[in-house]
Parts: sequence; C-alpha cells; structure tokens
Amino acid sequence: MRIEANLILFFWAFSIFSCLCFSVSSVNFGYRFHSSAIKAEQVKLPRKSSGTNKLYKTKYFTQILDHFNFNPKSYQKFQHRYLINDTYWGGPKKNSPIFVYTGNEGDIEWFAQNTGFMFDIAPHFQALLVFIEHRFYGKSIPFGGDKDVAYSNASTLGYLTSTQALADYATLIIDLKKNLTAVDAPVVVVGGSYGGMLASWFRLKYPHVAIGALASSAPILNFENITSPYSFNNIITQDFRSESENCYKVIKGSWKKIEDTGKQSGGLELLRKSFRICKNFIDVDVLESWLETAFAYTAMTDYPTPSNFLNPMPAYPVKQMCKAIDDPKSGNDTFAKLYGAASVYYNYSGTATCFNLAYSPDPHGLDMWSWQACTEMIMPTSGSNKESIFPENQWNYSRRAAGCKAFYGVHPRPNWITTEFGGHGVEEVWKQYDLL
Amino acid sequence: MRIEANLILFFWAFSIFSCLCFSVSSVNFGYRFHSSAIKAEQVKLPRKSSGTNKLYKTKYFTQILDHFNFNPKSYQKFQHRYLINDTYWGGPKKNSPIFVYTGNEGDIEWFAQNTGFMFDIAPHFQALLVFIEHRFYGKSIPFGGDKDVAYSNASTLGYLTSTQALADYATLIIDLKKNLTAVDAPVVVVGGSYGGMLASWFRLKYPHVAIGALASSAPILNFENITSPYSFNNIITQDFRSESENCYKVIKGSWKKIEDTGKQSGGLELLRKSFRICKNFIDVDVLESWLETAFAYTAMTDYPTPSNFLNPMPAYPVKQMCKAIDDPKSGNDTFAKLYGAASVYYNYSGTATCFNLAYSPDPHGLDMWSWQACTEMIMPTSGSNKESIFPENQWNYSRRAAGCKAFYGVHPRPNWITTEFGGHGVEEVWKQYDLL
Repeated sequence: MRIEANLILFFWAFSIFSCLCFSVSSVNFGYRFHSSAIKAEQVKLPRKSSGTNKLYKTKYFTQILDHFNFNPKSYQKFQHRYLINDTYWGGPKKNSPIFVYTGNEGDIEWFAQNTGFMFDIAPHFQALLVFIEHRFYGKSIPFGGDKDVAYSNASTLGYLTSTQALADYATLIIDLKKNLTAVDAPVVVVGGSYGGMLASWFRLKYPHVAIGALASSAPILNFENITSPYSFNNIITQDFRSESENCYKVIKGSWKKIEDTGKQSGGLELLRKSFRICKNFIDVDVLESWLETAFAYTAMTDYPTPSNFLNPMPAYPVKQMCKAIDDPKSGNDTFAKLYGAASVYYNYSGTATCFNLAYSPDPHGLDMWSWQACTEMIMPTSGSNKESIFPENQWNYSRRAAGCKAFYGVHPRPNWITTEFGGHGVEEVWKQYDLL
Repeated sequence: MRIEANLILFFWAFSIFSCLCFSVSSVNFGYRFHSSAIKAEQVKLPRKSSGTNKLYKTKYFTQILDHFNFNPKSYQKFQHRYLINDTYWGGPKKNSPIFVYTGNEGDIEWFAQNTGFMFDIAPHFQALLVFIEHRFYGKSIPFGGDKDVAYSNASTLGYLTSTQALADYATLIIDLKKNLTAVDAPVVVVGGSYGGMLASWFRLKYPHVAIGALASSAPILNFENITSPYSFNNIITQDFRSESENCYKVIKGSWKKIEDTGKQSGGLELLRKSFRICKNFIDVDVLESWLETAFAYTAMTDYPTPSNFLNPMPAYPVKQMCKAIDDPKSGNDTFAKLYGAASVYYNYSGTATCFNLAYSPDPHGLDMWSWQACTEMIMPTSGSNKESIFPENQWNYSRRAAGCKAFYGVHPRPNWITTEFGGHGVEEVWKQYDLL
C-alpha cells in the first residue's frame, strides 16, 4: 500500500461535489455533479482488511447518539470506529503527542490510507496516530449499524450533524487518553476538506481537548456572505484555461452540442456510443454531470505525481486532459476530444469497457453528504458565470432549500459556523485564532 | 422597586440547593434541603407587571427547540422571553456595548430585579442591557408554553440542557444585534450562580459572540474530582461557628433532638407547635429540610444590608440567627432557639401565622432544576463530615443517580464541562481563560 503524502491538499471541495450528486435522483439541488460513475470494481482501492495491515489497528468505541439532549432516545449507543497506530509513539511518560484525524464524510480507512502526511511526520514527533470515523459513515452507523434504518428518514438522519460529530471526537479522545494513562498528552487534530473544517471547529469548540489544529484544503469560509458562489467554478475554469485557450473553449462549447445532439432522432444512441456508456442507461443531464464530475474532480486532485485517491490518475491530470482535447488527431470531433479527456479521470488504468451512469452507492461511502448539504453545509459553490467552463447558472439558495425539503422533508438550518461567522466580522474572528 | 447591587454575590449554590428539594416527593436524592416553604403570598416580590415598569421592556424571540440535531421534532419553535433596557445605550453608531445576563434556573424578571450591578454600571459604559430567560423557566416554555406538557417526562424535558440554553443565547444575541443594526457592538455576558457558569461557558463556546464574561458566585469548578463534596457545608458550618461556638453547637445538636422527639408519642404534634407548622402536614425529615434550608440559604445570602432576594431578611442575617440562638431568654429550649433562628429567614416581616411544609411550586419557578441536577449538573455538594453543622453523611454519586433514574427514568450524563474539565489539568485550562 502506497501512502500519498499531501494527497488531500487541493482537495477542498470534495465534500461540496459529493453533495451535488443528485442528478440521478428526481431531485435537482441546482447545479450538480455526478459521483464517480465508473464500475465499482474498477475504483476499488487496494485496501488492507481491517486489523491486519501495518498502517493501523481497528478499534471501536461505544458512543452515545445525542450529546446535547436528554431524551431517552438520545441515550442510545452505537459502535464508533477508529484506527490507531502506536508504532512511533513515545508513550505517556514522555508526554508524546497524539495526532487525531477528524474523519470526514466517508470510510475512515480510505482517508487514513490517503493521509500519508500524518505517517510521514509521526516518527519526528514520536506521535500516536488516531483516525476517527465520522458518525453515519463507513462502519460507524447508529441504530444498530443498520444503514437501512439509519439512512431511512429525517428522524434517524437527524443525528448526522457536525456538532454531534465534534462531540463524538471529544468524548472518544478523552476516554482514549484515560485508557492509555496519557491524560497529559497534547492532542493536535488534523483534517482535510470537510474533515479540515471539523479540525478547525474542534479547536474552537474544545480548546481544552486539542492544543492545535491543522486544517488542509478546508473551505471554512465557503458560506453565504463570505465567499462568492462563483469562485469555485472560476478556479476550475482557470485551471483548464491556463493549460490552453482551446482546451477551455472546447469544453465550454461542448454542453450545447451534447444537448442539441440529445434532441435529435438517434442522438441519445450517438452520445451513448461516443462516450462508451453501457447500454442500461443514457440521459443528457446525467451525461453532462458525469463529464462535469470528471473535470471538477480532476481539477481538485491535480497532483504533480501519479495518484489514486478518487480514481487512478497520472501526474498533472488537468494537463493530460487538455492534451487529449488539443490532440490534432481528433480533428473537430468534440465528443472524441471530451471522451479522451474523461478517460483520464474514469479510465486511466484502461480496464473499463463501458461506463455505467445508473445510480450506484458511492464506493467510498460518501452518499450521506447529501443530507449534510441539505441541513447545515449549505455551501454556495455551484454558480457559473459567463466565463465559466461549465454551463452558465446562478447559485440559488432557495432552490437548494426547496429540493432538500422535497427530498428529506427538512429545510436547511445552517450551523453555528455558517450563521455566526457569516459575513461581517468573520475575518477578525478567524485571525484571532490564527486561522487566516 | 429597590435594586440590590451585588445581591447575587455569595449566592453561589442556590442552584445546588434548589436541586435538592426532593424531600417532599418520594425520592431521596441524598442529603436534601426544602425550598422556601413560607406561604407564597409572603415571599412575593414587589414585581412590576411586564412591559410597564421602568427597568426593562419584555420581548419574545422565536427560538428553535433543538440546535444540535435535525429531527423534524427539533424544528419546533417556542417563544423565548428576554428583557431589554436601552435607557443608557450609546447606540450602534458609537459601538456601545451590550451587557447580556445569561439567565439561570428561574423567572428572568426575578434575576433582572436582583442584578442591580448591571443597572449601576450601564450608564458608565453607555450599555444596552439584555436579560435572557433560560429555556424551560419562567415564560420561556417549549411545547406551546404548556408547562404540563413541557415538564411531563424525559421526552420533553430532554431539551432542558445547558448546551441548548447556550445555543439559545447565541442565536438570540446574533439576531438581536442584526435587528438593532449593531452587529459590531461588543457583547459582555454576565451571570450569577448557575447563570455565571453559563456566562463563563458561553465565552468559551461562543468566543466570537461575546468578548468577555463576568461570572459571579459561579461554581464552575464544583464537580467530581475537582471540589470536595464537603466544602460547601464546611463553609456554612464555619459561617455559623465564627459567630459563636454555642450557636454552632446548638444547631449541630438539634437534629438528634428533633428525631428523638419525632419518635415519641405526641412528639410530632410537639414539633408542629414548636415550629408553628400549619396543621396540614408535619414530618420529621421535611422539618429538618426546612431548617437546613433556612441555615444554608441564609449563609448564601448573608449580605451586609437588608435584602429581599429569597425572602425579606435583615442585614447580616447569620449573625441575627446566632443572636436568637444565643439569647439567654430561651434558656435550654433548643426548639425555641431554632425557631427564633428560622424566623430570621422565614418570617422577618413578621406576617406569617404558620408555616406550610406541604409541597408547593417554587415561587421563583426554580423547580425544574431538579431535572438539570439529575442529568448534567451533578454537583457533589451535600456531603457533611464530623464537624459539619448538618447531620453527618457521605456524598453519594450513585445514590443520586439511582434516585434520578427512578424519578425521571434517565441516568446522569455529565456535560462537557463536568467530564472534560473534570479533575486533572483543569486549573491550567481555566487559567488559560483567566477564569481562576
């Protein structure tokens, strides 16, 4: 198993995109991206089975369902997974530190296996490494571990909140330190993307539990009144445009061509063949999402080395995509150019024979981000202005809210950070905590 | 209406005692004190009717039931009362401050009318004064304002927690500042007793909302592994003993005499007459609680001026109690001596004809503290050692827990402050926030 140091860097909006994978459901939350639609067996990471690899041991902590009210229901317990590596630890007598990864919206093993940075620095600090899974993801499922129950509706999903997750982490860390007779060991929390937001919030809300936080690629300021809803797509646009103006123009012009083709007789079949979509499903909206996902996710993981976080990819994959698009061999065939680019993301290993656009659960267990994006993580990211490489559209808070209401029966209720830090004065506050 | 500056000083354990008023129910939570048992009409404060007095205007804010989960139920609203005085305010353009009283376990009007300190300093700072009521007290009752529903069982009382109350305050303050176009106005939170704990916790948990906290008489360190369960009673013992050794000895020796008398034929009637208890109810345990309450509450409000917070009382009331006990006129009549002392607390106005020991709701609406004392506010205070002026007993966490379980069907779940600050290392953390 190769560990990719810094792999989570530049990965700031993964959460955001995994929140927008609704195009295949009947709900449109605004502008949307499809999640990795390649066949599941082709994106599987070479994971070690739990408890037997050399990276970590798998443990479980008995966690409480609700930390903030005392309904009898809130006393329910669930098994909370965490991973631990004490190879480098100097132990309690030396007061050696504990580095805790505050797990984000997916399987914690996947994040642990892609956060080489912590393994890299652990020997230097003689640190204990702990990776804590986020409730409702991976194997940390309340309601008896039964996803069918836990994910069924708002009365069970209601316990999936960032504030509960932070309290989980505090509870687990305090208990673990006691068990290790390491009450004095300093704790530094670490996270990337949404996990980085959690790390920084954890330091704010539990300053007595963590002496520091390292938040990588964490969009902590990506909320209403703080960050423009166009900035995310503007950056992606710039990523491709900086490779070549032609690359940008081909992608930007492709959406209308796809839509026009879809309306023609036999057009859907033409699209299906052009993009090697499997026979079971073809739809213009879903195809566009599938392509948008390829461009956006590749921009987010545009690492200078070959990597395998979302999918296997070459070094500098955006450059590779534009190379495929700019390739004179494909002449004026926009679809061939796009297919070449999409293949960098979806089929770099070359093993796929066709692509399945029908909905299937996310291979990294990210699906329930859709709930979080409907309740508190209302990030205004999907706006596209005239210059955008993606189809032009306005970010629309109300439309998102309406979609969430229809789908989950709840309306958004932005969390303390999104409302209380929102807009005015936010910079001062974050500066105060050295977070800017 | 006379405002008592500093009246809440030395009042640190009111919450604690109001938590122990269970002797008249069938549950014994350990050592217990009866709440003020004088007839309700005799303890009524000369309150102004809402909205018409000169101290404040009464307002309501639409508050959400649960800030930390997204069950459909948590979206329920309730009317949250707060009091506001802008007489002294310099206004938003001057960035004049806002002083917010973080209401504790009772009617907010009562606390506002007894926190003269804020009215005293407001002109100097040109401050806006806001007093926010604590959920489930006074007129801030969830579930449609219906106490019968809200107080009925753990599934409704479950929303009565300190963490929810803090989130209420944050939400209300942020909204109020927006409405006053005073987003930049610095906020300082102020509180006494449990309200002081809330003020200090608020500063820790919502550092971006309050720039400072003034916690008066707040037992923030009064939790397991931090403070001895005997310290509270030791201080009360010392209060009386420092007046006179005889005073201490008479009180200390009285408990056995009361118990022995109660066992004799006609003894209960003798006790009833000795203490002028009304004819409807007499019980040795309840009588002892009633006396213990008088001594403890008087020690807690041993102000150097006449006051009227819990009951009307003279200046230096502990001294007055001991004067009654040491009075040679009462010879060796212990009960007469005790009655004289109790009268300082229960009948200083001299209008009571008999005392009613039967249960009646607390005149200041403090009753639901019993729930909080059963869930997170497990303060180890009622231990009495050999020297104690009160009957000797051991503080017993387990017995409290068992009582709560039997009464409310829940077991204690100490909140973040009681567990996470508990014991080791706590001083360092509090020092970090200049709270020690």
